[in-house]
Amino acid sequence: MTVSVAFQGERGAFSEAAAIKYFGNGVKPVPLPSFEEVFAAVHDGQCVYGIVPIENSLAGSIHRNYDLLVRHNLHIVGEVNLRIIHCLIVNPGVTLKEIKRVYSHPQALAQCEGSITQIGAEPFPTYDTAGAVRFIKEQAVTDGAAIASRQAAVDWEMDVLQEGMEDWGENLTRFLVLSPKEEVPESDAKTSIVFAMKDVPGALFKALSVFALRDINLTKIESRPLRGQPWQYLFYLDFEGTMAEERCQRAIGHLGEITSYFRLLGSYSAATE
Amino acid sequence: MTVSVAFQGERGAFSEAAAIKYFGNGVKPVPLPSFEEVFAAVHDGQCVYGIVPIENSLAGSIHRNYDLLVRHNLHIVGEVNLRIIHCLIVNPGVTLKEIKRVYSHPQALAQCEGSITQIGAEPFPTYDTAGAVRFIKEQAVTDGAAIASRQAAVDWEMDVLQEGMEDWGENLTRFLVLSPKEEVPESDAKTSIVFAMKDVPGALFKALSVFALRDINLTKIESRPLRGQPWQYLFYLDFEGTMAEERCQRAIGHLGEITSYFRLLGSYSAATE
Repeated sequence: MTVSVAFQGERGAFSEAAAIKYFGNGVKPVPLPSFEEVFAAVHDGQCVYGIVPIENSLAGSIHRNYDLLVRHNLHIVGEVNLRIIHCLIVNPGVTLKEIKRVYSHPQALAQCEGSITQIGAEPFPTYDTAGAVRFIKEQAVTDGAAIASRQAAVDWEMDVLQEGMEDWGENLTRFLVLSPKEEVPESDAKTSIVFAMKDVPGALFKALSVFALRDINLTKIESRPLRGQPWQYLFYLDFEGTMAEERCQRAIGHLGEITSYFRLLGSYSAATE
Repeated sequence: MTVSVAFQGERGAFSEAAAIKYFGNGVKPVPLPSFEEVFAAVHDGQCVYGIVPIENSLAGSIHRNYDLLVRHNLHIVGEVNLRIIHCLIVNPGVTLKEIKRVYSHPQALAQCEGSITQIGAEPFPTYDTAGAVRFIKEQAVTDGAAIASRQAAVDWEMDVLQEGMEDWGENLTRFLVLSPKEEVPESDAKTSIVFAMKDVPGALFKALSVFALRDINLTKIESRPLRGQPWQYLFYLDFEGTMAEERCQRAIGHLGEITSYFRLLGSYSAATE
């Protein structure tokens, strides 16, 4: 049976490439307009899995997806890193000199900021990268370009003017694989959690100490606002280890003594590259 | 002499209101198209101060400004919190039923997500809130609305259809005041720093411990990617205290033993509300 995987964007989106890299060519990627709809499609069983970008090595976290992880009751069951190579894509015949506007997702625009300035063009935000290609094609834009994957140019039959628009070579995006069902690996895993602290002095220090005292390495910390409580935060932590291990269970038990909110988002095999 | 203060956006922007709240009515706010230009105007001496939003209590940090704090050599010399009340603004005569698109800055769209869904409209990102009002006026948009301050509606002579579009009542934005010159208050202050850690186990825990061991309270932690080093981070910390105090100087000295990069962004009087 073909595994269906929901992703946000149009055909040729980087999320689609991430789904194929993770699941192999047999997968059936299902394009959806928004991240919200990706979470909903997995929750409702329309798709077996969902895949969403969570972090880029140049532009930082995709905070929207951190927020959606808390709002929806899905589990993280995998992660995959994808090397992102951005292309400057135009309608056939359009030259570099004619480009006044560059359309793409704000994350892609941020990753290519220097290159866009060099062209002397103005960045113009759109909802996704491949969608920007579709937009300049449908509107027959002759004074603008889109930034997206080479695959998006192929899919929409457009020209690639430049490849490697990203400002730094090491441009990676980390994607999370989501499922309604928990899967806990025995070893070589990462675990993601989210919590809020009781209002005590040195709260975050105490939270991190439950891991440090057990030699559990943290790989990522992210904070997001707690709605309705200005300047209070939800913290997202990734650590090396799986909930199948006793030391991780003990750390989480210890953390529970000082948190006002806690949720385990999942243990999953860490990306190997 | 009138103090000139650079801000990003059009007349009627929330940043302009923040400048007036902080400096009083005698201030001369100078509108500029981008945050980058605000930092440059203060650096080059075109304006005495700059004011930029750094964090909203619903939508989170303005990461762009965290990045610019590191790229430019300015000091944080003050902060001010502003209550944000978003209005749904239209061309005279346009009714709620006609609105298919809502134009505003992505931060404002995020703060009003629920209200926009309730109207049945599609959010459409623009570069600033007051600029969205100008856009729908200049384009004579009759099937769309902008989200911005009441002042922006007044300045552009437009109608306010609804007030309080934000999804939660306690919607505050924290702004930072920037100067080329350092100002260190004696007491009742906050200090902001940015650093990267040496690659050692439990690095962040050790960094936080230099404050916890001296009973120095942290008020905010934010992480941003270190460019060229995937999954390594710059950490921004705010703590209660001023660099005029010996315990803070000692904590920072201690921190220097375990950091590979460090910069003091400034000590400044904490906002009182």
